[in-house]
Amino acid sequence: MDTFYAHLDANRDRFLDELKRYCAQPSVAAQNLGMTEMAELVKERLEARGFSVRLIPTAGHPVVYGELGEGPRTLLIYDHYDVQPPEPLELWDSPPFTPTIRDGKLFARGAADNKGDQLCRMQAIEAWLATQGPLPLKIKWVIEGEEEIGSPNLEAFAHEHAEMLRADGCLWEFGGKNEHEQFTLTLGVKGIAYFELRLKEMEVDAHSAYAAFLPNAPWRLLWALSSLRAPDGRITLDDYWPHVAPPSAEDLALVDVLPFDAEKIKANFGVREWLFGMDDRTANRALRFAPTLTICGLEAGYTGAGTKTVLPKEARAKLDFRLVPNLTPDLVYDLLRRHLDRRGFDDIEIVRLSAEHAARTSPSAEIVQAALRAARTVYGHEPVLDPTSGGSGPMYSLCDRLSIPAVSAGVGYPGSRAHAPNEHIRLDDYWQCQRFIGHLIREFARQDF
Amino acid sequence: MDTFYAHLDANRDRFLDELKRYCAQPSVAAQNLGMTEMAELVKERLEARGFSVRLIPTAGHPVVYGELGEGPRTLLIYDHYDVQPPEPLELWDSPPFTPTIRDGKLFARGAADNKGDQLCRMQAIEAWLATQGPLPLKIKWVIEGEEEIGSPNLEAFAHEHAEMLRADGCLWEFGGKNEHEQFTLTLGVKGIAYFELRLKEMEVDAHSAYAAFLPNAPWRLLWALSSLRAPDGRITLDDYWPHVAPPSAEDLALVDVLPFDAEKIKANFGVREWLFGMDDRTANRALRFAPTLTICGLEAGYTGAGTKTVLPKEARAKLDFRLVPNLTPDLVYDLLRRHLDRRGFDDIEIVRLSAEHAARTSPSAEIVQAALRAARTVYGHEPVLDPTSGGSGPMYSLCDRLSIPAVSAGVGYPGSRAHAPNEHIRLDDYWQCQRFIGHLIREFARQDF
Repeated sequence: MDTFYAHLDANRDRFLDELKRYCAQPSVAAQNLGMTEMAELVKERLEARGFSVRLIPTAGHPVVYGELGEGPRTLLIYDHYDVQPPEPLELWDSPPFTPTIRDGKLFARGAADNKGDQLCRMQAIEAWLATQGPLPLKIKWVIEGEEEIGSPNLEAFAHEHAEMLRADGCLWEFGGKNEHEQFTLTLGVKGIAYFELRLKEMEVDAHSAYAAFLPNAPWRLLWALSSLRAPDGRITLDDYWPHVAPPSAEDLALVDVLPFDAEKIKANFGVREWLFGMDDRTANRALRFAPTLTICGLEAGYTGAGTKTVLPKEARAKLDFRLVPNLTPDLVYDLLRRHLDRRGFDDIEIVRLSAEHAARTSPSAEIVQAALRAARTVYGHEPVLDPTSGGSGPMYSLCDRLSIPAVSAGVGYPGSRAHAPNEHIRLDDYWQCQRFIGHLIREFARQDF
Repeated sequence: MDTFYAHLDANRDRFLDELKRYCAQPSVAAQNLGMTEMAELVKERLEARGFSVRLIPTAGHPVVYGELGEGPRTLLIYDHYDVQPPEPLELWDSPPFTPTIRDGKLFARGAADNKGDQLCRMQAIEAWLATQGPLPLKIKWVIEGEEEIGSPNLEAFAHEHAEMLRADGCLWEFGGKNEHEQFTLTLGVKGIAYFELRLKEMEVDAHSAYAAFLPNAPWRLLWALSSLRAPDGRITLDDYWPHVAPPSAEDLALVDVLPFDAEKIKANFGVREWLFGMDDRTANRALRFAPTLTICGLEAGYTGAGTKTVLPKEARAKLDFRLVPNLTPDLVYDLLRRHLDRRGFDDIEIVRLSAEHAARTSPSAEIVQAALRAARTVYGHEPVLDPTSGGSGPMYSLCDRLSIPAVSAGVGYPGSRAHAPNEHIRLDDYWQCQRFIGHLIREFARQDF
């Protein structure tokens, strides 16, 4: 691979210019800002490497879909060309869409999540073609435009184009190095079911003196919520736990060796101990394997300064269930509806705001083994396997639904500040990851394992 | 009293002009608007009737205090020269501080609550002096400037001036006719203890994926709240019920004959039935005699549109306890603090936002009996005795603390829209109530009952 490395090294200035142009194009799906221009730019950059590219319409922003190469194996790649909104702008040290290099880092909205990965991958493929000949496998590349708004149309896209998307493995969009500078391969995500509960008891607010006989929306919502989780933290949703499979011994062993910087996290949030006094190992396991039920928002009545003696007509709560594999968003919705109805809360409306399945790939999958071999070669240490991120994403919709094992690895590190002001990547990580992509192509195309 | 009536009738135009000037002066304590000018105007109008008047400083707006007359009995009168904020202005048919007469009604902020009562009372005293000679009793008049912001300084004022305020009975500030056009004498108010509960668990909000191990402020506040009231509605605050005396048979008999327009209230709020299916009689009793616990406000995390996957650092609730006589605000605070501490919620801060004791006067008190006789004479029907309003006010601070029986009666009616846009009084009620004041003076001064 020496000539491959040499091509990468010789073209760093051009590659960096290309990356800066790519990050300079705003593409905020939530604000419908620059999305058409960005989709065209993605298409053009892929075509520059010889990909055959189409913009495939969805109910929202189009998917950019590219194909290149032939071989016994097919590699699916998933990325997204939309980015998070850049606000609050005043907290950026350089403008979010003016990519700027400081201290060996490239600062820009999308640099880490996930435009850097896209160009890192494209430039590695360019170097392969320039030095190794044609690709030894077929690459199918899905770059969607709605990941940061919950990928509302990706599942329909995957369903409609299931035949076209058939592949042997998928390289997912995020990743990089962990707190101990270990390159990390992530094999899954938690699921999420996000609901808003709405209870309206009256047409208008009343004076609180009338609380003696008028219905009370905040209390009834609170009683409903308190039936869902006990003060010891246990989720008490009816018929819920039979669907929660405990993590396997293999999963636990993988997670127990992952770094978990307890003191840093505690200092960051200003807490003295973990929830319910759990120890660090339990906390680290819980992040990956414990289903959670969070109240993300509560709202009723008067919340300004001082007093208002009001009996509120309505109350609302936003609930975030994080899901392990057998707990699907639809199942949780059904359990919640039945649980509330059974207790006389059938007047509480449940609005489904977002839903993503949990996803998991076995460490023994070919794509994972190929990534492990590639990472060992490039990074010079044993990479870390994380069975599942504590976060969520549309991995299930694209991969698990189509039975495609997935591994996630990329150019980021824990300080990348994805979704936050001063998002950035370290350029050394970027150059190193280009090499990883080349080795991954080689390893995944090999038939002798 | 014919000459007394004649003086009132002959001076209606002047009296109305005086009332309009009085209501034209803004005096919004919450906005510190026009308070000095209003205090001076009150002083001037009292002095015009011969009262000896002082502005007595408090920690807030001064109390206007006037004295006039001599006799074996002393009558305390309580009013307030501040008014509610007039907002929302766009819902007024004429400007709130441009008193306007339409359909025999005077529209202005403060016309009903409670500037109309003040001039009605002053003008009746003027007519007495002009036609009946000197007052047959001593009148001590307290007109405070902070009733609409919870009378924060009235208790200290009453304590400091206890000797000066000594009296045999008190005429309180509000009242008038009920839904059936019956003149009503009210003998008490409910108490109130209004708290804000604040729980802060972290220094910053966290991503909700971290809910697996970080503390959760909304859940802990919700568990704390749910320990205070059971889903059957019963307040479950520790050691609370031994302090709740049931209403007497006499109280219940008085309340059961009061009008309670169930269908109108239900239609107004858009509810089909009362809380927990209670019947109308129970609801009417509950308004006066049931201690309540209302959640007036709930606030945590993200309450905008759509989703934000956030674990909120803090949560807040506003709680309004309505109190019966033995439940004092201090007692309820102590019970609440101990209740929360006992359950491990000692990190929940309780901020005391307002506190007023319940107050009650016996129907057999001389001032009540005098008011009954006066009302029978003027209104031509048996007046109604309401043992206690469902609302709250500083009656305890001024009257019960100084052992002064109190009766409340005034110029209002259920349509007066106190605290709301288009506040008004009916002028016929106003003229009638002037006569009532004259007879009340005569009856309360009589020693033969």
